[in-house]
Amino acid sequence: MPEAVETMDGWYCLHDLRKIDWSAWRKASQEERDEAIKELQDLLTKWEEVEENREGSYSFYSLMGHRADFIIMLLRPTMKELGEIELAFNKSKLAAFTTSTYSYVSVVELSKYMTKEGEDPMENPGVRARLKPRLPKWEHICFYPMDKRREGNDNWYMLPMDERRELMYEHSKTGRKYAGKIKQIITGSMGFDDWEWSVTLFAHDVLEIKKIVYEMRFDVVSARYGEFGPFYVGNLLTTEDVPAFLEI
Amino acid sequence: MPEAVETMDGWYCLHDLRKIDWSAWRKASQEERDEAIKELQDLLTKWEEVEENREGSYSFYSLMGHRADFIIMLLRPTMKELGEIELAFNKSKLAAFTTSTYSYVSVVELSKYMTKEGEDPMENPGVRARLKPRLPKWEHICFYPMDKRREGNDNWYMLPMDERRELMYEHSKTGRKYAGKIKQIITGSMGFDDWEWSVTLFAHDVLEIKKIVYEMRFDVVSARYGEFGPFYVGNLLTTEDVPAFLEI
Amino acid sequence: MPEAVETMDGWYCLHDLRKIDWSAWRKASQEERDEAIKELQDLLTKWEEVEENREGSYSFYSLMGHRADFIIMLLRPTMKELGEIELAFNKSKLAAFTTSTYSYVSVVELSKYMTKEGEDPMENPGVRARLKPRLPKWEHICFYPMDKRREGNDNWYMLPMDERRELMYEHSKTGRKYAGKIKQIITGSMGFDDWEWSVTLFAHDVLEIKKIVYEMRFDVVSARYGEFGPFYVGNLLTTEDVPAFLEI
Amino acid sequence: MPEAVETMDGWYCLHDLRKIDWSAWRKASQEERDEAIKELQDLLTKWEEVEENREGSYSFYSLMGHRADFIIMLLRPTMKELGEIELAFNKSKLAAFTTSTYSYVSVVELSKYMTKEGEDPMENPGVRARLKPRLPKWEHICFYPMDKRREGNDNWYMLPMDERRELMYEHSKTGRKYAGKIKQIITGSMGFDDWEWSVTLFAHDVLEIKKIVYEMRFDVVSARYGEFGPFYVGNLLTTEDVPAFLEI
Amino acid sequence: MPEAVETMDGWYCLHDLRKIDWSAWRKASQEERDEAIKELQDLLTKWEEVEENREGSYSFYSLMGHRADFIIMLLRPTMKELGEIELAFNKSKLAAFTTSTYSYVSVVELSKYMTKEGEDPMENPGVRARLKPRLPKWEHICFYPMDKRREGNDNWYMLPMDERRELMYEHSKTGRKYAGKIKQIITGSMGFDDWEWSVTLFAHDVLEIKKIVYEMRFDVVSARYGEFGPFYVGNLLTTEDVPAFLEI
Repeated sequence: MPEAVETMDGWYCLHDLRKIDWSAWRKASQEERDEAIKELQDLLTKWEEVEENREGSYSFYSLMGHRADFIIMLLRPTMKELGEIELAFNKSKLAAFTTSTYSYVSVVELSKYMTKEGEDPMENPGVRARLKPRLPKWEHICFYPMDKRREGNDNWYMLPMDERRELMYEHSKTGRKYAGKIKQIITGSMGFDDWEWSVTLFAHDVLEIKKIVYEMRFDVVSARYGEFGPFYVGNLLTTEDVPAFLEI
Repeated sequence: MPEAVETMDGWYCLHDLRKIDWSAWRKASQEERDEAIKELQDLLTKWEEVEENREGSYSFYSLMGHRADFIIMLLRPTMKELGEIELAFNKSKLAAFTTSTYSYVSVVELSKYMTKEGEDPMENPGVRARLKPRLPKWEHICFYPMDKRREGNDNWYMLPMDERRELMYEHSKTGRKYAGKIKQIITGSMGFDDWEWSVTLFAHDVLEIKKIVYEMRFDVVSARYGEFGPFYVGNLLTTEDVPAFLEI
Repeated sequence: MPEAVETMDGWYCLHDLRKIDWSAWRKASQEERDEAIKELQDLLTKWEEVEENREGSYSFYSLMGHRADFIIMLLRPTMKELGEIELAFNKSKLAAFTTSTYSYVSVVELSKYMTKEGEDPMENPGVRARLKPRLPKWEHICFYPMDKRREGNDNWYMLPMDERRELMYEHSKTGRKYAGKIKQIITGSMGFDDWEWSVTLFAHDVLEIKKIVYEMRFDVVSARYGEFGPFYVGNLLTTEDVPAFLEI
Repeated sequence: MPEAVETMDGWYCLHDLRKIDWSAWRKASQEERDEAIKELQDLLTKWEEVEENREGSYSFYSLMGHRADFIIMLLRPTMKELGEIELAFNKSKLAAFTTSTYSYVSVVELSKYMTKEGEDPMENPGVRARLKPRLPKWEHICFYPMDKRREGNDNWYMLPMDERRELMYEHSKTGRKYAGKIKQIITGSMGFDDWEWSVTLFAHDVLEIKKIVYEMRFDVVSARYGEFGPFYVGNLLTTEDVPAFLEI
Repeated sequence: MPEAVETMDGWYCLHDLRKIDWSAWRKASQEERDEAIKELQDLLTKWEEVEENREGSYSFYSLMGHRADFIIMLLRPTMKELGEIELAFNKSKLAAFTTSTYSYVSVVELSKYMTKEGEDPMENPGVRARLKPRLPKWEHICFYPMDKRREGNDNWYMLPMDERRELMYEHSKTGRKYAGKIKQIITGSMGFDDWEWSVTLFAHDVLEIKKIVYEMRFDVVSARYGEFGPFYVGNLLTTEDVPAFLEI
């Protein structure tokens, strides 16, 4: 019988993707808009402080295309804190001019496929750090959820552990080619959201995002066993960019 | 020909998932909001009394993500009573500021796969109690509907009873590892709603939810025969939490 | 080559499932609401008269869950009459406070799978009556559309007539176990709506609905060849119940 | 390698399916409604003149069910003219009370599967007439889009030409049984819309629509290779019927 | 193990498909409408200048059917510039009367399947020009996204490079038959949007669009390995056409 590999889990993670109702925003008074912008900047400043204190992390990017205008990605030690931040944002002045068109609930995860026998990866400070990461403020973001396939002869969960380990190892080799170009955060979401994992990629050069996703598609673990949800791509928004982004 | 295993059925169950229209809620007067909050608290108090009297049970949790802000889960002896509660909630002041984005209609169910020959499980008081459960007020909830797969060679309903029983037994062993950490309510919904069953998990530590769902995914009954609907996860909301949750 | 079995067709059938905009209904004046309720009761009374005259039949049930608040099921001798009733209801005062969230267009149908050679079932008065049925006013309703599967090796339309007849016969035996507990109306909808058939079940005890759907799922005709659409379940609404159902 | 059969293409075709916002229509003034009705009747009269002049054709039917209240089907010699008519209708007074819930863009098409060697079907006046048809004003309409399947062993586009020709020939024999009862318009839409073809059926007796669709479902070309989109059915609306259809 | 073929990537590409809210547009004052039209024309003029300077390109077409009224296709050297243009358009006066019903984010792409050994296609000026194309202002446009299939035995990503190359070569032969009739722009979107590629076709004669899509459907690379998203077709809109297109 197939055996589940253990996972190591870190900070809880919320991706919140919002679409701005530009028509309503345009109709609001300048004062209302100024207040909403100020409140958003205060929130961002607060999240920066939490990040400075190593008590969480955040990302803020504008998104391309019609499905959402921006994404907020938040990491916190507990699900409860994440819920409180989401609630606070829902009650903010800007939120009243947005709809949350997608979101994702998960937890930063590392699998133990690569663990050597007799080794406890949690004793490795590098591993522990990867579970509570500081999200990079690189120029571009890519976010997508995914499943491992369970269809006919292509059933990941029926493969013996050794075969899964081998396929994951091959996959990790592709990933390592992009060291320094792509920063990747994997989160697990079974029981928390509709897909099994989410992937968030950060890049200085957005073309590297396309290249890694394309190259990995030919890894057997993706080619035969990957099911992919929606893909979102975007550009960095700093706290200073906010007024220009929202001014009308 | 495959044979249906008998089921034991208990209280009827409604999951009602609501999204708050924060923009409209913000525009309402303080008085309107106070009245709506008061009315909701009265409803919760009433449901607590019913629970005290062992005439039903309820859960109330905030939900993570954009699809819904809270879930109400209600158990009652008849479908008619469930319908009346749903109608009353639809007519409440708060409901006018929400949309029901998902719901699920079912009945608490135990299957007889594990029944020994010559035994009548309904004579077992533990079994009877499990059919009319008091829902725990633990810190976290997870809710999802599911089907057994009927596709090509992976057709649950074409398996002989013995093979189904064996697979269910293996599955139950995984579940038992989480005793004390996870409380699980299974409801059946054939003829009542779009999926065949719903699963509701309660946990003190939300990570246990991810762990049990992940580990069970490798059980053959899930790996080959499970089809899963949307997953929702959330945090406990007590009657006392309501004003803070809704204040703006 | 597979051969189509003939069908016998009776009254045309419309299922109309409506969701009430409780927020708008609450904002309407008491007078508006009273007029709308009165008009709906008049419509129901008219439909009762048509039923008394054996010129059609109707059902009216509240529905559980977020997808719809009530269902109207109407039978009439012609599609044109059905269209006129639908139009009249769309123009009614209550309809302005509802949205039709689902509907189904079909015709009462009996297949000739069980017909003995040399027999003309249309000469059987029982058969003719079943094509123009008086819908029971039992406590509960269940409605769902369905297809016969056409996928790989599970292709109903490629089976020889004899095999289909045998599978339908086994299926009908399951159905007969529920005589007196379940009243079942089958309608055909090829060319009329998105699924191939609709099934409407009536029951005194709502649990019998779950039991029959569950047991039939193990019949090969369902297990291998059934594809099921959304399931709706509800409670009887009499003309007298209308004011209480709608009062706010 | 499989070879594409040539097609013959005629007039361009737009199916426009609209839902009326009855609540807004009811709130409009009698004068507004009268003007909108008059303008629609003028449009219909204009389309009738174009049809008289053999420069196009049109259909206008009310539709059953919640997805749309009426369908306009228009044939014109160029895509540009179709676009102009659609734009004009979008700008009409009635359109402001409707939403277009479905549409279909295609071109009347005949395949050359049945062409005898050495024969040029375009020299046949009957064939040429079928490419620029006058749409019948029969009592009922049925419209649905469809694909030929490309799945595993059921891949239409991988079949040798001779096998496709044979299957199409068998299919056409079923169709010919309905001569005089059903008038069928096939349009091709590859590159124009989401499905590969659309089928529009006209009938005096709506039951004939169900019968032909049902019988054809057993033709191998449908049973193994047909994928069907939504089905819509409706009743004829003449220009004279318009006021009664829309009066409130 | 299958090997990814390298790609060459050029300008970034945004397809933005918008639906006009004709009801709101009709209610706007003549002055508001005139201002919105003027602003759109100014934008178009600006995009023309960028195109003249070879710093990007654009297309503007009306679309057939209910899903969108027009499409803007924009090419720019960086993703950041694309994001700025999208943001500016969202803030325009006309945009407040539209909703973006679909969009697509990608980058102009050429694959190296046809590259001869020892050859560097990027040294070929024709290849470089194709990566930064001037979009033709031909009469008609067709746009659709697509995937290569990964299902059971039809898994493109598991094919050896040579087999993929051969299938792509056959496919390109079909394409070359349409030289002068169809201008085709392929963009890659892995990591950027939900499908793997987008295809945009331009034609003088809209029937050529149907012909090429139809003929290519029989190429094995499409028949067995192509998965197609929504198809949109439309007619050229020049800057001069804008007032007539929008006047009411």
